[in-house]
Amino acid sequence: MTTIAHTPTPHTLAALTTRRARALTEPLLREAVSRLEPWMALISSYHLGWCRADGSPAESDSGKAVRPALALLAAEAVGAPAEAALPGAAAVELVHNFSLIHDDIMDGDEERRRRPTAWKEYGVPGAILAGDALQVLAFDVLLAGGGPLGQVAAGHLTLALRELVDGQARDIQFAARPWSGPGTVTVAEYRAMAMGKTGALLAGASAIGAVLGGADEPLARTLAEAGGQLGLAFQCVDDILGIWGDPAVTGKPVRGDLRERKKSLPVIAALAASESAADQLADLLADRQSVGDEGAAEGGSETALLKAADLIEECGGRRACEREAELALARAHDLLDLVPMPAEVRAQYTALADSCVARVT
Amino acid sequence: MTTIAHTPTPHTLAALTTRRARALTEPLLREAVSRLEPWMALISSYHLGWCRADGSPAESDSGKAVRPALALLAAEAVGAPAEAALPGAAAVELVHNFSLIHDDIMDGDEERRRRPTAWKEYGVPGAILAGDALQVLAFDVLLAGGGPLGQVAAGHLTLALRELVDGQARDIQFAARPWSGPGTVTVAEYRAMAMGKTGALLAGASAIGAVLGGADEPLARTLAEAGGQLGLAFQCVDDILGIWGDPAVTGKPVRGDLRERKKSLPVIAALAASESAADQLADLLADRQSVGDEGAAEGGSETALLKAADLIEECGGRRACEREAELALARAHDLLDLVPMPAEVRAQYTALADSCVARVT
Repeated sequence: MTTIAHTPTPHTLAALTTRRARALTEPLLREAVSRLEPWMALISSYHLGWCRADGSPAESDSGKAVRPALALLAAEAVGAPAEAALPGAAAVELVHNFSLIHDDIMDGDEERRRRPTAWKEYGVPGAILAGDALQVLAFDVLLAGGGPLGQVAAGHLTLALRELVDGQARDIQFAARPWSGPGTVTVAEYRAMAMGKTGALLAGASAIGAVLGGADEPLARTLAEAGGQLGLAFQCVDDILGIWGDPAVTGKPVRGDLRERKKSLPVIAALAASESAADQLADLLADRQSVGDEGAAEGGSETALLKAADLIEECGGRRACEREAELALARAHDLLDLVPMPAEVRAQYTALADSCVARVT
Repeated sequence: MTTIAHTPTPHTLAALTTRRARALTEPLLREAVSRLEPWMALISSYHLGWCRADGSPAESDSGKAVRPALALLAAEAVGAPAEAALPGAAAVELVHNFSLIHDDIMDGDEERRRRPTAWKEYGVPGAILAGDALQVLAFDVLLAGGGPLGQVAAGHLTLALRELVDGQARDIQFAARPWSGPGTVTVAEYRAMAMGKTGALLAGASAIGAVLGGADEPLARTLAEAGGQLGLAFQCVDDILGIWGDPAVTGKPVRGDLRERKKSLPVIAALAASESAADQLADLLADRQSVGDEGAAEGGSETALLKAADLIEECGGRRACEREAELALARAHDLLDLVPMPAEVRAQYTALADSCVARVT
């Protein structure tokens, strides 16, 4: 096990925390994936960055392992060694990647982590099935490796999955809602969606880690709530990056969320402002010719997208989103403060939490 | 609980057995589905035949409830009341329907049980997500309702799901294999695929029912093996109906499996015959213009499809498939004979098993 010597900066500490989680979890993930039917193992390994499309080994980006890190920290927070939570850490990472593979199909996204998405590389049927396979594998790893606590932990996994699907379903339905007038998506609806889509699995990771570490239900629930708030903060930050993020850093196209006409929080908050700029923004967004794919095809949308981004900022949408992230982070810290834990673990927890938001502020 | 009076014919007994399973399981299924996010509940309810596309109540075909019936019978076989297996019966039916919804997307099938498929009605994203929701719900129902035996039962569910995905993956890959020469799909490969795609969940239903009924592991495994063999028999019969079935009875287009160029057992067995008719069949099937969708579009394929069906019969493909079904059924009976159980339960088990094959012989 890697221990943290000296006193690194919070930023370094967060990186060390996720790097340790990746190092501890990956052998179990690789072993689990290797047990899949070869084609399913290939698609999963490709998606996870372990190989190229043809199966030859590669070391691409596997993601930041925030969920495994939370599972391991939760176990340590309740006094168990990180290793106690390993099946849980692997399970939540498998579920995370199942949801990414299916989300990419549902959203029609062609790129993830700077490579073609799984469905783009292997077709929709293979990608649907590989997602299904990873979801099953998550339960397999947790039930087989979780010992007598596996059933309780699996209960938390089903809860997280149910809320995740629920959040994703709300998100898809947002697309059909109007940009203004009755039926406009509210900030409260957004929050419920984000708590499901992103919060649920961070909450689940924390609860599962705590349960496998021997925590009682109230303690597991407090850590889960902290994880959920972190998830909300995380999603808010993602939303800001989706409009104002630097493509060189995010690996996503500039103003991509506006281009895809996503009803993300900065947009929703801006539209809720009672200003003429908000009306102007609604008109602009409702016009598929200017900001939609049609606009992009005609090459005339970049100016409109930039204009929309500026209007969102003018209406306070960006600030409202940052504020939502900061509040969620503060709630996470308050919840973590309720849980007695070793100082070293708290330092890592805090650093990891802050790093979720530090990406934009 | 419905009990079986008098001595009904085996056919009637099988129908009573599945009808009882449907009646016992459906309240639990409805309660579980009603807990889903409203849009997910709508798509699932539509798929399950409980409502029309707009959500208004309907009583469409929900399927035959063979899997719930097996779960309930397995519990009764080991001396427990059928009710002990109810969470298991609901879980396997949820998994079955999850796999149907995803299969229809993967296969591009537009109709099921005489209605538009879920993806056709609600779009691919909604259908992918509804499938995911039902898979989660299966674990939820089993872990929440299975009591202390829930974890063991959930282990059997993950095993069944893993094999199901494995079989489906093999099946998809069959499509890319040649019709003749090296790389032709073998009967052994077909069997492994069918044991996964169809056998695994019938095996899982039996194992889960037995476990929830208090059976020890060897007993559960024997009943699971019997279920797996029934699944193989079931798939063979489906394959025969897929070519020679009456559309009025099956609800599927005549010679649909040939039209979709499926490498089903009658075809594989026929191609393996060392006869000139087999070569002729391979040439015919390899020609997308004559039997593929292109042929259908040109309206010139019906004759070719009929010709292919006749060649398959001439090469013994149909007979080989019937034989495979009969052998699998016989193995199922042999396995069931090893398990002491009440005479009334055995009669239902036998009737249900025989009815799987009686659909064609």
